[in-house]
Amino acid sequence: MSLPGHVTIREVLLRDGLQLEAPITLADKRKLLDAVAATGVREVEATAFVSPTKMPALADAAELAEQLHHYPDIEFSALVASPNGAKRALAAGFSSLEYVVSAADGHSRANVGTSSAEATARIQEIVTLARDADATVEVIIACSWDCPFDGPTAENRVLDIVGRARDWGVDRYALADTIGTTTPRRVANLVAAVRPIVGNAPLGAHFHNTRGSGLASAYAAVQSGVTRLDSSIGGLGGCPFAPGATGNIATEDLVYLLRDSGIDVDVDLDAAIAAARIVQEVVGHEVPSALLRAGDRLLN
Amino acid sequence: MSLPGHVTIREVLLRDGLQLEAPITLADKRKLLDAVAATGVREVEATAFVSPTKMPALADAAELAEQLHHYPDIEFSALVASPNGAKRALAAGFSSLEYVVSAADGHSRANVGTSSAEATARIQEIVTLARDADATVEVIIACSWDCPFDGPTAENRVLDIVGRARDWGVDRYALADTIGTTTPRRVANLVAAVRPIVGNAPLGAHFHNTRGSGLASAYAAVQSGVTRLDSSIGGLGGCPFAPGATGNIATEDLVYLLRDSGIDVDVDLDAAIAAARIVQEVVGHEVPSALLRAGDRLLN
Repeated sequence: MSLPGHVTIREVLLRDGLQLEAPITLADKRKLLDAVAATGVREVEATAFVSPTKMPALADAAELAEQLHHYPDIEFSALVASPNGAKRALAAGFSSLEYVVSAADGHSRANVGTSSAEATARIQEIVTLARDADATVEVIIACSWDCPFDGPTAENRVLDIVGRARDWGVDRYALADTIGTTTPRRVANLVAAVRPIVGNAPLGAHFHNTRGSGLASAYAAVQSGVTRLDSSIGGLGGCPFAPGATGNIATEDLVYLLRDSGIDVDVDLDAAIAAARIVQEVVGHEVPSALLRAGDRLLN
Repeated sequence: MSLPGHVTIREVLLRDGLQLEAPITLADKRKLLDAVAATGVREVEATAFVSPTKMPALADAAELAEQLHHYPDIEFSALVASPNGAKRALAAGFSSLEYVVSAADGHSRANVGTSSAEATARIQEIVTLARDADATVEVIIACSWDCPFDGPTAENRVLDIVGRARDWGVDRYALADTIGTTTPRRVANLVAAVRPIVGNAPLGAHFHNTRGSGLASAYAAVQSGVTRLDSSIGGLGGCPFAPGATGNIATEDLVYLLRDSGIDVDVDLDAAIAAARIVQEVVGHEVPSALLRAGDRLLN
């Protein structure tokens, strides 16, 4: 079992981290972006173009987009949940879109009001919109392992979405553990099943630490050949189906684990810990980061 | 890579979990033991026979021992750090001893006032004492990966202790990540190096979640053939070298991960979560358990 030499971390603090928080000012988002940029990370999910009433914390998506030219070394992406959202994101200047499709009907209906098959069918339109604007599209498959309404997700539901996305020319893929329930063995199994379909296209994964297994799952993904991982500074980001539970895997905790495994990442650990401290100040409550409390390994 | 069908969980709440807490009454320890027994766990580390001034929370070790006959289905063990401690544990009726030897001189001197080599030499005397009392001895190697004073532990220091312990007839072994710094790759490497020395003797591992990687390391150990893991209900148990940081891996979080991986354990998840709630009441503060907050997977 060989590990990759490098793993790309995409920082999702500004989107997944903030989306359930009380809205903060654009100035505070700039403060967070400054801290994120200081970590050296190369990819940042900046916001989502979704219903502002559903996610008031991200209602400033277009205004935030106007600020991103201050960070020329970062590739910013925006999450969308519909062709209309894709249009708004492209109009705001994003050239990297993430389209979320839920593999489970229960979650898909709760999230976007359509079945999983209907949401999948929209991939083609979103790819066309993106191509016309010279943008790329990543398909993120929500509920890749479990759905809060439907229970465990059948593997072929995920494989079917991935296959259609590939046929429509999607640029890359990510498997998302939306409710933080998966564990390493199930991660390895699904990655092994998806890989032959996507070939050499970039394959990422997105884990929440809701049940404590987030880093274990992330490491299993990397062992299985995933080279892109989402994480959030401080571990910010709740799960609407587990109130009060831990959120995304924390960037600094992930960096510690990968670096200690001999895997190169673009994120500096000390800067990530410093950013987690700033996140706590901005959101006004403690974040679940382990490294923020424990600090780096003694006597490196 | 095949996973074992069964993993033995040893509950260390009463020793490692409590050792840095303010002392609680014997009645409260009985309350914890009742909750632990209700989980179905078969092995429990009950206490330590060490300096009562150093660890006032465990000063009632002999009194607690008199209560253990109430739990006939559990095999209780006691931790010792010297031949004198072993004598006291055997006199109190324990038939399963854990002798901790630190692989690093810095930690060994801070912990027991002797070098690692001197502490290792005492294994033989402790085995003799145990044999005379029909008791078994497990050697736990503290700082198997890192020392808070000396930095990373050279692998051959661990292998040397394991080899001597085997020659002196020790019954079983455990590798301990005393300060919660190791990560999966280093775990797999050390287990692979130790296994040929111990042969088929039981090999366990003990992880802290101080830097968030505890469960990832535990899973890596199990992938590498370790079939015994220590954990603490609620994740109780701090690290004296990382004040305020997360403690032992939480039993309920470990059970969730192993069960979800198709591995049989003796511990019931719902009962473990209920026990974590009782731990919070008894110690009077929040514990870092993920499952206590998030609950079991929805719609199993």
